[in-house]
Amino acid sequence: MSILIKNGYVIYGENLDVMKADIYIEDNKITKIGKNLNISADYVIDAKGKVVSPGFINLHTHSPMGLFRGLADDLPLMDWLKHHIWPKEAKLTREYTKAGAYLGALEMIKTGTTAFLDMYFYMDAVAEVVLESGLRGYLSYGMIDLGEPDKTEKEIKVALETMKFIEKLSSERVQFVFGPHAPYTCSIALLKKVRELANEHKKLITIHVAETMTEIGQITSRYGKSPVVLLDDIGFLADDVIIAHGVWLDSKDIHILARHRVSIAHNPASNMKLASGVMPIERLLNAGVNVGLGTDGSASNNNLDMLEEMKIAALLHKVHNLDPTVADAKTVFKMATQNGAKALRLDAGVIKKGALADLVIIDFNQPHLRPINNVISHLVYSANGNDVETTIVDGKILMLDREVFTLDEEKTLEKAEEVVEKLAG
Amino acid sequence: MSILIKNGYVIYGENLDVMKADIYIEDNKITKIGKNLNISADYVIDAKGKVVSPGFINLHTHSPMGLFRGLADDLPLMDWLKHHIWPKEAKLTREYTKAGAYLGALEMIKTGTTAFLDMYFYMDAVAEVVLESGLRGYLSYGMIDLGEPDKTEKEIKVALETMKFIEKLSSERVQFVFGPHAPYTCSIALLKKVRELANEHKKLITIHVAETMTEIGQITSRYGKSPVVLLDDIGFLADDVIIAHGVWLDSKDIHILARHRVSIAHNPASNMKLASGVMPIERLLNAGVNVGLGTDGSASNNNLDMLEEMKIAALLHKVHNLDPTVADAKTVFKMATQNGAKALRLDAGVIKKGALADLVIIDFNQPHLRPINNVISHLVYSANGNDVETTIVDGKILMLDREVFTLDEEKTLEKAEEVVEKLAG
Ligand SMILES: [Zn+2]
Ligand SMILES: [Zn+2]
Repeated sequence: MSILIKNGYVIYGENLDVMKADIYIEDNKITKIGKNLNISADYVIDAKGKVVSPGFINLHTHSPMGLFRGLADDLPLMDWLKHHIWPKEAKLTREYTKAGAYLGALEMIKTGTTAFLDMYFYMDAVAEVVLESGLRGYLSYGMIDLGEPDKTEKEIKVALETMKFIEKLSSERVQFVFGPHAPYTCSIALLKKVRELANEHKKLITIHVAETMTEIGQITSRYGKSPVVLLDDIGFLADDVIIAHGVWLDSKDIHILARHRVSIAHNPASNMKLASGVMPIERLLNAGVNVGLGTDGSASNNNLDMLEEMKIAALLHKVHNLDPTVADAKTVFKMATQNGAKALRLDAGVIKKGALADLVIIDFNQPHLRPINNVISHLVYSANGNDVETTIVDGKILMLDREVFTLDEEKTLEKAEEVVEKLAG
Repeated sequence: MSILIKNGYVIYGENLDVMKADIYIEDNKITKIGKNLNISADYVIDAKGKVVSPGFINLHTHSPMGLFRGLADDLPLMDWLKHHIWPKEAKLTREYTKAGAYLGALEMIKTGTTAFLDMYFYMDAVAEVVLESGLRGYLSYGMIDLGEPDKTEKEIKVALETMKFIEKLSSERVQFVFGPHAPYTCSIALLKKVRELANEHKKLITIHVAETMTEIGQITSRYGKSPVVLLDDIGFLADDVIIAHGVWLDSKDIHILARHRVSIAHNPASNMKLASGVMPIERLLNAGVNVGLGTDGSASNNNLDMLEEMKIAALLHKVHNLDPTVADAKTVFKMATQNGAKALRLDAGVIKKGALADLVIIDFNQPHLRPINNVISHLVYSANGNDVETTIVDGKILMLDREVFTLDEEKTLEKAEEVVEKLAG
């Protein structure tokens, strides 16, 4: 299949140069970029007055949690988890989780996310949804053993079963990732085993680290060191690890993360909503740490909108540092695209010849995106997910002019509503 | 004219009770709310699966500044003003400003704002746009004399001419407000004169106060007191004053504002983007100060989206206070609606019998607004301005199903683009 996108403003290359150009896509790759390309194609999309951007890469989420959107807000973390989220999650079945994954996939396609790194349960069901939706999913089963040896075994078993299930799907778009939940919910034995298995199977690892002060306190009193130092000491850290959050990091932690070339998934909206704290973005970037952007789950955000997330990231760090030059638009845009791709070892996040054709078209013919003084600024500071008109992943059109081709919108919304009613019962 | 809105989820009354109900509008007022109203009407709108909300009230903006959206970002305030905004503003003509006002009005209608408090130049031109757009505009000419007596006279003159121009329009929807820019740009003589004139003509006053630490430093070194104490000492403060920002306030300032029943327009996105600081929301609310919400101008936001602003407000105060219970969804929703109305002495911001028919319909048939666990939470934490489908002001439909009736969208966007090209030359 081939697609020709004509007349758009293209955000080109690693440096985000905006230029009027046409883009030619063959199979799953961008094969030509230039002025007035005269090539026949199976699909021709006129992008006049529109912006062609790399698709957004959500580097940390729990995609089925849209089911719990707005169920409980404005509460302390442990109250929220213990009295609202965990009791609901205990009732989740494979079927319910799958309904949540459909809702999440639909929302991501509609808001321009083309790839995401996920952690949840029933990840085989989520894998089926990813396959069907056309998205690129990096899927981890969230392992929690709470230090109980029986559970360690059991969690490893589920993870390996999930890996096998996903590998059988034989799709480049669906990848298994190891997902030990966090240093405070996983034993050292589990973490060490995950490191071994990741080496053996050449898989990425994602884990929540240094999200709250409470966590720092727990880990320090249990092990006498910070979560990052702990992970370093047991040989867990390497350039295949993506830690979510990294809010509470001291200079030593940052140095360790940089040395091992660990990536971080920054989740500003979730960190703000749960009042977790502010990730030290300047110190991390200065140390050369690769920082991507994520939304976290919809229960603590409450959406999966990467465009909104960019604005929140840019604003948060300016006010927190009382310095308006921090987290400038280009830096944040790179976090939401190429930095995420780098963490996932994915040849996407940038529009250039030879890259995977994961891109989105955004309609700038709207008052809040005019005048077109600065495309990157408008995407970061003024656009939102609803402005995405067309979403292309792996050279396939998943949404055109806001119409989703791969999923049934009405059925997805109805099913999610049904599941929530059942969970309430 | 009459409008019947059927089958929606209505956000009812001051307490924001969500109920399935029909709403009947006659002329410019809500005259009936109830289940299954069987009344004939000129327009019947089916709001099934949709939410009927009070329209949003933007309590502080500079509506023509959309022209400068994205022109310069990520800069220190004075660099941004001196090298980017002021040189452009010096070139503004009445015609150019009017083009900016059209762009702003269009954006507000499309994102569900029904009333706004504005400060800028050529406010007679802005008044014409408000009249035509169907919005409710509270318009102040921004007075700056920098302590020069000639200028004091001149600024007063322009303000009074603007007042006369607006009064001649004889529309309840377009109101004049006095707008001395700030204590650091206005002389005491000007401020005192404004207080007199506001009393004489029974007009509201709006003024930027305590936005940055720099301002606090300047005023303190010039007058030996804080901006709020200064305004109190010269008899400027009363319940007809709406101060924008109020970021840097000590306990004495807060006590003074509460005592005079001054309202505050909170602008979290602008305060974050310009790295001004964080308004002490809890202390203000605890003191009983009426706090509304504003976007500030599009050059420092960079949009006029009140739904996005609600989320930013709710998130900012949680992380700043490391307390997730601060700025809960209902509190923030009230700021964006009824508190703004109270500041403007407007019988709107609440859906109830007898109130002005200023309301919006939001389409919840979208993945990021499902399942409908909690309507207010979804509006604050997950919705954005593009979700607004229908905007009604003063009993007139300004937008239906995203189609704007009162303004020409294409012409507005084109004209704004033209003006920016001319300003660049
Ligand atoms: Zn998470
Ligand atoms: Zn302002």
